Amino acid sequence: MTAVPGEFGLIYKHFRPLAGPGGLDLGDDAAVFTPAPGRDLVVAADAMVAGVHFLPDDPPDLIARKLLRTNLSDLAAMGAAPLGYLLTVSVRRDTPEAWFAGFAAGLAADQAEYGLALLGGDTTSTPGPASLSLTILGSAVSGTALRRTGARPGDEVWVSGTIGDGALGLLAATGQLDDATGFLAGRYRLPQPRVALGLRLAGIATAAMDVSDGLVQDLGHLCRGGGVSAVIEAALVPLSPAAAAAVAAAPGLLERCLCGGDDYELLLAVPAARAAALRAAAAACGVAVTRIGRFAAGASEVTVHGPDGAALPLASGGWSHFA
Amino acid sequence: MTAVPGEFGLIYKHFRPLAGPGGLDLGDDAAVFTPAPGRDLVVAADAMVAGVHFLPDDPPDLIARKLLRTNLSDLAAMGAAPLGYLLTVSVRRDTPEAWFAGFAAGLAADQAEYGLALLGGDTTSTPGPASLSLTILGSAVSGTALRRTGARPGDEVWVSGTIGDGALGLLAATGQLDDATGFLAGRYRLPQPRVALGLRLAGIATAAMDVSDGLVQDLGHLCRGGGVSAVIEAALVPLSPAAAAAVAAAPGLLERCLCGGDDYELLLAVPAARAAALRAAAAACGVAVTRIGRFAAGASEVTVHGPDGAALPLASGGWSHFA
Repeated sequence: MTAVPGEFGLIYKHFRPLAGPGGLDLGDDAAVFTPAPGRDLVVAADAMVAGVHFLPDDPPDLIARKLLRTNLSDLAAMGAAPLGYLLTVSVRRDTPEAWFAGFAAGLAADQAEYGLALLGGDTTSTPGPASLSLTILGSAVSGTALRRTGARPGDEVWVSGTIGDGALGLLAATGQLDDATGFLAGRYRLPQPRVALGLRLAGIATAAMDVSDGLVQDLGHLCRGGGVSAVIEAALVPLSPAAAAAVAAAPGLLERCLCGGDDYELLLAVPAARAAALRAAAAACGVAVTRIGRFAAGASEVTVHGPDGAALPLASGGWSHFA
Repeated sequence: MTAVPGEFGLIYKHFRPLAGPGGLDLGDDAAVFTPAPGRDLVVAADAMVAGVHFLPDDPPDLIARKLLRTNLSDLAAMGAAPLGYLLTVSVRRDTPEAWFAGFAAGLAADQAEYGLALLGGDTTSTPGPASLSLTILGSAVSGTALRRTGARPGDEVWVSGTIGDGALGLLAATGQLDDATGFLAGRYRLPQPRVALGLRLAGIATAAMDVSDGLVQDLGHLCRGGGVSAVIEAALVPLSPAAAAAVAAAPGLLERCLCGGDDYELLLAVPAARAAALRAAAAACGVAVTRIGRFAAGASEVTVHGPDGAALPLASGGWSHFA
């Protein structure tokens, strides 16, 4: 009985080196750690399925990093600092060991970049597509975590980075859109969670969330959270040069940018008097921020004005798994 | 944009009523809660896939409860009290709403029984088998969490409840074994995590884990954790009346009981001088405990003595997802 069976061999070899002190070398039934006094715990979980959230042939290191980064984006939206994560991996029995090695290498790279460690998880087989989940734990000074509920009439609508790259990147990665530099596909495969910016938003943003299901739909969540409405100007929504070129060539892609999802940028409600503080915070961490509209009194309505000032008719609100 | 799309409608309707105060009504990017001072956090995650960990046609309330209970069993093995959980659910787009309703009803029942609440998670579609994951959070007085590493030569090997029902129950549930009363299939579908017993084991057990991958294999983990070996007597391993009858009719099933997994009982190392304290703790929460062998010096070897005193040759060590 001294032989370690295959499942445990894989875990020991590839995942144990990723474990932090609380992970107990992944050798126990659970992880144990002592929360720092004066801080709240912030916890989120996301699942990803091959063929739904990533392409089955995507490199395993990028799959791992996307999984970790979508969760880091949730922490960023709450203004929380990363602590650690638990991971479940369900893949086919014939998955080559190189896949696990690549997957673990991706996690190691992002652990170093974002400062967190593996705490535990589970590795199982599945006869179906690879199915992954990650639960992330972070912390924030007690009472300072950002919420979706604070937007007030008159607050401005701000976004970080550029919008639409992820949605266009999926088209590019599947051969439906020209992407000579690979920039758009790269933005789809490797989100850039705005953790550093999120940590500077306490006292600046009245509400925050990350844009994952499409700008317009997610802005609807902020409106419902605050009991307000919002008007944004399509011409103000920041597009990357690659996205702007794609939209110039095919104007119908503008709607894809506004509604398509996979952005992992921050969407913020900020009182006008704090705009300078927001700009300073963003500059301090090298992230662009752009004002795209304003919240107003009203019943959770989102209106998008087109370049001519008229409301854009949008056929699709955003991504939903169950239409 | 006021319509809530299908995914969010499902979450709001079925899962939001399960959310505790920290879950922020599942309306935010993450959950926030304040850990109690003087306690460590204990965190574990498990995944379950239809056709691997449960039968695709199992009732959804029992699938949900098994998922929650396998994680509660991990907390029990650490001696931790449940706090809350995060859940990811990936199911086919055509999953009927009644499935979600049943799944949520199962969670509600066990939340009431074990005293914990939903903190957050993710619901996605998959073209493959249903794929579920759950991360559980618990707490223990700082420094008291049970570990797998403390077994010492001379400590006794103890188990809670009965062994083998889960493995025989899978045979029964798939029509391969007679199970007139349904007891065995019930044990497979609805584990009984020993949370109350786990909370009483600080100062009694030197090492603990839950039996999920088979008694013999899991005992091997305790041996490796403590750098010891173990000898157990097959005749001492507690079988339920239903399992005992099945083994009497087909002696080959004894190995299935010892190596088959899905028991979710506690496996303990206990110094002989604390046996009375263990019995008292078990009696206080209405759980049977049985001494089945002893740890000894040596290199992580597990020996199982058969009824005739000779070592039993076991063909399979236990369950592994990747042989």
